[in-house]
Amino acid sequence: MLLDLTFDHLGVAVPDLDRAVSFYEQFFGYRMLSERFDDPTQRARVCFVGTGRPGDLVIEIVAPLGEDSPVGKMLSKGTAAYHACYSVADIEQALDVARAQGCVLVAPPVPAVAFGGRRIAWFYTPTRQLIELVEQ
Amino acid sequence: MLLDLTFDHLGVAVPDLDRAVSFYEQFFGYRMLSERFDDPTQRARVCFVGTGRPGDLVIEIVAPLGEDSPVGKMLSKGTAAYHACYSVADIEQALDVARAQGCVLVAPPVPAVAFGGRRIAWFYTPTRQLIELVEQ
Repeated sequence: MLLDLTFDHLGVAVPDLDRAVSFYEQFFGYRMLSERFDDPTQRARVCFVGTGRPGDLVIEIVAPLGEDSPVGKMLSKGTAAYHACYSVADIEQALDVARAQGCVLVAPPVPAVAFGGRRIAWFYTPTRQLIELVEQ
Repeated sequence: MLLDLTFDHLGVAVPDLDRAVSFYEQFFGYRMLSERFDDPTQRARVCFVGTGRPGDLVIEIVAPLGEDSPVGKMLSKGTAAYHACYSVADIEQALDVARAQGCVLVAPPVPAVAFGGRRIAWFYTPTRQLIELVEQ
């Protein structure tokens, strides 16, 4: 079966949120599309940036929050662009399909601060790409 | 100064091009938007996939071509989503601005098979994101 997945944003891991926001403003002409959120569940500090034009790429800049953040582990591997996020109507169904396709679940659905409490989940594709799902 | 950068595609490194194309078709409902290209300059085998709907995300799936491919080095670090590509009118000017912003040039402009000979260049941002530029 085919899911109706809508690309939502590209996640970029950075060591310093403010420095990265500043760079995206100055080089790409992006602006902040959200406030800065602290998400203790994800152990991440995040901010969405982009042009704000409909349909344009939205980048979620993600910095570690605390010592044992998964984002910190990404950065220690030298990984900057680290996830692509898609929105989906039924997140459990999407994860079932992902598993059937050989994906590896990283984290089951939990509410996320940056999405107003909408649930997010994480998995790796068989080709090792990190995918985030957010329920619509 | 601000450049007029247009987001073009997201590059995803994979060990096996055909297996990845098949996964993107089956899970995301994507289709091939190009043929498979071998680019000896980039030492990469690439294919563009997506929904084909205007404005939707285009993913460039990139597999190593040969033993000493830069894509192979990315994969050995566990990096899958590895570059974001923007198109720009004047690629030399954009690189000048990038350098002035503290970016590190990885590769100067060279013609690229996957873009019909249009030139591409690579740099790292100060926050370690790998960016590709393609001239319009």
